[in-house]
Amino acid sequence: MNSYGVVFRVSLFGESHGTAIGVIIDGCPPGIALKPDDFMADLKRRQSGSRGTTKRKEADLPEMLSGVFNGLTTGAPVTLITRNSDKISSDYDEFKQVPRPGHADFVSQVKYSGFSDMRGSGHFSGRITWGLVAAGVIAKKIAGSAEISAKLISAGGSDDIEKAVNEAIASNDTIGGIIECRIINPPLAIGEPFFYSFESAVSHIIFSIPAIKGIEFGAGFAAAKMRGSQHNDPFINSDGKTATNNAGGINGGITNGNEILFRTVVKPTSSTGVDQTTFDFKKGKMTTLKVKGRHDTCIALRMPVIVEAATAIAMADLIMIDRGIHNR
Amino acid sequence: MNSYGVVFRVSLFGESHGTAIGVIIDGCPPGIALKPDDFMADLKRRQSGSRGTTKRKEADLPEMLSGVFNGLTTGAPVTLITRNSDKISSDYDEFKQVPRPGHADFVSQVKYSGFSDMRGSGHFSGRITWGLVAAGVIAKKIAGSAEISAKLISAGGSDDIEKAVNEAIASNDTIGGIIECRIINPPLAIGEPFFYSFESAVSHIIFSIPAIKGIEFGAGFAAAKMRGSQHNDPFINSDGKTATNNAGGINGGITNGNEILFRTVVKPTSSTGVDQTTFDFKKGKMTTLKVKGRHDTCIALRMPVIVEAATAIAMADLIMIDRGIHNR
Amino acid sequence: MNSYGVVFRVSLFGESHGTAIGVIIDGCPPGIALKPDDFMADLKRRQSGSRGTTKRKEADLPEMLSGVFNGLTTGAPVTLITRNSDKISSDYDEFKQVPRPGHADFVSQVKYSGFSDMRGSGHFSGRITWGLVAAGVIAKKIAGSAEISAKLISAGGSDDIEKAVNEAIASNDTIGGIIECRIINPPLAIGEPFFYSFESAVSHIIFSIPAIKGIEFGAGFAAAKMRGSQHNDPFINSDGKTATNNAGGINGGITNGNEILFRTVVKPTSSTGVDQTTFDFKKGKMTTLKVKGRHDTCIALRMPVIVEAATAIAMADLIMIDRGIHNR
Amino acid sequence: MNSYGVVFRVSLFGESHGTAIGVIIDGCPPGIALKPDDFMADLKRRQSGSRGTTKRKEADLPEMLSGVFNGLTTGAPVTLITRNSDKISSDYDEFKQVPRPGHADFVSQVKYSGFSDMRGSGHFSGRITWGLVAAGVIAKKIAGSAEISAKLISAGGSDDIEKAVNEAIASNDTIGGIIECRIINPPLAIGEPFFYSFESAVSHIIFSIPAIKGIEFGAGFAAAKMRGSQHNDPFINSDGKTATNNAGGINGGITNGNEILFRTVVKPTSSTGVDQTTFDFKKGKMTTLKVKGRHDTCIALRMPVIVEAATAIAMADLIMIDRGIHNR
Repeated sequence: MNSYGVVFRVSLFGESHGTAIGVIIDGCPPGIALKPDDFMADLKRRQSGSRGTTKRKEADLPEMLSGVFNGLTTGAPVTLITRNSDKISSDYDEFKQVPRPGHADFVSQVKYSGFSDMRGSGHFSGRITWGLVAAGVIAKKIAGSAEISAKLISAGGSDDIEKAVNEAIASNDTIGGIIECRIINPPLAIGEPFFYSFESAVSHIIFSIPAIKGIEFGAGFAAAKMRGSQHNDPFINSDGKTATNNAGGINGGITNGNEILFRTVVKPTSSTGVDQTTFDFKKGKMTTLKVKGRHDTCIALRMPVIVEAATAIAMADLIMIDRGIHNR
Repeated sequence: MNSYGVVFRVSLFGESHGTAIGVIIDGCPPGIALKPDDFMADLKRRQSGSRGTTKRKEADLPEMLSGVFNGLTTGAPVTLITRNSDKISSDYDEFKQVPRPGHADFVSQVKYSGFSDMRGSGHFSGRITWGLVAAGVIAKKIAGSAEISAKLISAGGSDDIEKAVNEAIASNDTIGGIIECRIINPPLAIGEPFFYSFESAVSHIIFSIPAIKGIEFGAGFAAAKMRGSQHNDPFINSDGKTATNNAGGINGGITNGNEILFRTVVKPTSSTGVDQTTFDFKKGKMTTLKVKGRHDTCIALRMPVIVEAATAIAMADLIMIDRGIHNR
Repeated sequence: MNSYGVVFRVSLFGESHGTAIGVIIDGCPPGIALKPDDFMADLKRRQSGSRGTTKRKEADLPEMLSGVFNGLTTGAPVTLITRNSDKISSDYDEFKQVPRPGHADFVSQVKYSGFSDMRGSGHFSGRITWGLVAAGVIAKKIAGSAEISAKLISAGGSDDIEKAVNEAIASNDTIGGIIECRIINPPLAIGEPFFYSFESAVSHIIFSIPAIKGIEFGAGFAAAKMRGSQHNDPFINSDGKTATNNAGGINGGITNGNEILFRTVVKPTSSTGVDQTTFDFKKGKMTTLKVKGRHDTCIALRMPVIVEAATAIAMADLIMIDRGIHNR
Repeated sequence: MNSYGVVFRVSLFGESHGTAIGVIIDGCPPGIALKPDDFMADLKRRQSGSRGTTKRKEADLPEMLSGVFNGLTTGAPVTLITRNSDKISSDYDEFKQVPRPGHADFVSQVKYSGFSDMRGSGHFSGRITWGLVAAGVIAKKIAGSAEISAKLISAGGSDDIEKAVNEAIASNDTIGGIIECRIINPPLAIGEPFFYSFESAVSHIIFSIPAIKGIEFGAGFAAAKMRGSQHNDPFINSDGKTATNNAGGINGGITNGNEILFRTVVKPTSSTGVDQTTFDFKKGKMTTLKVKGRHDTCIALRMPVIVEAATAIAMADLIMIDRGIHNR
């Protein structure tokens, strides 16, 4: 189930310390200009480097294996890969013995009967989102004039994000954050009720991103405290423009043409430098674990471009489904 | 896109004031005991009747059209329908002229080029969830020993739900609420990363339910304020039992065997009795709208069983996918 | 897996002697005029009545449960059912003991662990094609100006079909036949290589029809005897018109605008009146079976409209996929 | 639509003269031993080299990019690629002007609006089947004790295949052939009626292979000439063993445990050395074309292993679907 989409279909593969990671974009229309450089702006936004992000350095340059000819997409599947180079595999047998709390170590052992590649969290690593961001670059071109922009609006519970990150570094701990995503000039009337509403499609792909634990559209959880007379967004013109936007631009699972708005929560990075008391599965008793290796203090810092990419992919697919049925 | 699921597949159909509504359950294993009565406990939980719910009364009795023989499922698709009887169609042309704020009236007109059945909100009505609940009854039997239970934990911002409903009725307005869903004794190791994580699957189907605007797993949005050392759930025994459950029973998109926990927000019913200033699309100017008809003051009161059903369906499908690949 | 299609999606349900059989058509564009009568011409072509077909008489009138309002499709799923009335269930326990050769009796018992509904062959009955023909009526409207016409070109090895049927009746036996399907004025450039070629899509759905055992496009099996210089269809104008049509209107899995041509073979009805020596699974020894009940001498007589419907459904789906990706 | 399968899912990518071609195998169970060498036996059977096959020489060595660790599958997607090295791109602009009869040149130009990569037929090349054969190696391991073996039983209409090939070479022309595929010891009861019958699944993937124009199961087209009393396969023991096998091991779309048998026809290679009169789309008049480049006289010689691979993939997927639903 490593593919997303019905018509515009994105498949991811690779492991953190494997040979290469990559992505196939299928259902990609022909004639889209595409060169390796086009990906670098978004791929760089995803990279580490700033304070609070991991010291692992990858060039991240995409190699185009298929689907592009003379700088233009051909209509055949576009395949992009990048080699993993800066790999320092810690002793992963250790994680079998003492699975890291909050990580996929334990469940991946159970699910894959002990055969999963645990180096650098393997297929569960945030590194796999490289392909998502690359696919997002193409999806954004399909999403037309829609401008998708996500940003980190709080970290560790504070809107002074820099300060929060510094405090976390100082205490050798990690923090999460909240990403807000806005889509200005979105396509009107995409989303397919009952089971492929705009929210269903977007939440499906957003929850594929490691560390995401919640999503809310428009007023979101605050809606539970509102009256209908407050929450309803009255129309103010014949384009469907509304005075307020508690619905986040979506009614009945379909975009209403107003700005689309959602927020998603990123949990604190599991790999904290603080000592953790947890279970030693080999010795059958509690133990103390200190996670080594290079990690992000605040992975949420690198998330906005990933959220944008996921959103663009969901939108491109919904646009194609709608166009296919409705011939517009 | 009115179907959900990869192997266990649920398709919904019908409109609020159409002839009948219904559901097909495909991929249903043979040999499951099933009689019309088995559905009534959950269907009654979904019905209106208590204070704060609509006065529309439907018998909701399921007619089994296919897939069951001698009281047992046969392995062929199970089809269930129920006739709509208590229909009072208001003048739906009115909603074309003055689309109700917060409703799907406007978007359904745009998306379906003016051809959608707007009587009682048509295919966008909460009434369509009848089939979801019916399918959920079967899915719960497939989910084995897992006990799924959802409840309304707050309404209108208060945990005194009865009082909140009464106040909303008194002010002729509507309120939303928050549903909490817990799964005790869940199957271990279901969920398919990258793109069909447990959270992806559940959020996909939960956001299909009309009026849902957010979902969070485990600590959810509160995780954004926590340190990694707080949020991580340390293991305490060799079954993977954890001391805390901030992950909501899910690591890396895979169930870890601990209780599964999520919350979802239901917006206030759009059909409020309070006057709303909105746009008259025919006259091209602002107008005042008072929504008539029978409606729920707090649709969230009827939601827990719907959330349970959706969750059970997602789980049944994930169980079958996992079993198919892993032969367990 | 009782659904076909990616965007235009048809789901079938029901059993031969169950309450009702039916079909959901999802992804159906809004605004298509549709009344029960529209279905009758094709449904009558599928009915029995002529010499060589079963004496079972069903009115076959469709009841529209959803998706149509004021005589027009709404964009919501269209659900059609018809009640089974003329049911004479023979003693189906007999088929568990002595499964009928050529029938699904044995495999359905194994696959569904003894729970399948065997009355009148249950879900394996040709009766289930009622829904396919009904969906085909809608699909033909979507396929635009394409004219799909199938006919029985031989039966029992003879092109004097009437004579062949009479001889089979006289000998109390059954015969098969070959259906030829032509599509005049087909859409150009539909079909999605690699895995959803025109031939892949059409063969997938055609092989869903009970009794179909082969399909060939254009010159088909005769191509094995031809030289490339004979088989290649040279172009003769700038529309892509070819001088010959050995490719059956399809190159590289994509329609080339020429007439589409394929043939499909229908095996002789399994329920022959001739004594058959077969195995008694209860007694554990060979026995002689004479199949009772009402059956078709030549089910192929009723097949052309079913083949047309299946083809139209595959085409409608391919058209929508192509339109979604290519915006045409 | 470059993916096949519901649970076991194979995605192909690449072009004949592009950077690399490859395949992703998703839904692959963990713990399967897999090293590059394991692929070579089947990949070599697919290679050219014998009389009647192209002079293009590719090492075809697979590079494993993901999904395998310590020589065992991990449960994550397996990605295999091979670089294209022996490329001699002829002047492809020529094919835009004078599309080769029988080739995808014309349709690919129309479908992809002139952007398709036409070098060596691009994504339409038989070279893309490299990934299919590689995936087949894995699928065969999943298909358990089933032995799938395909062979070329006639070429150019003759069962003296060597002679037929030599004659075709002598006349500078090309020939097709018929592949017969048998599966000994197949799994019992796989195939999902109505829409994912064994025949539907296998034909779907077989028709994805370039140059295939027909398929028949068991007696196939000959069934049209048989009586029911001849065609029916009487059971002879309690395992479901039948005396004859006109059904090709499949009843009602489900495998009955007897040998599975089908035949498929490969059209003559389109690239014949014989002069062809066809249309010049630029000059708007008829012209004579002589196809240059390295081509197969009889591509069918290289097809058996491709047919086996496709069949194994379809079977692996059907096994997983059946296991998921029926827990066996």
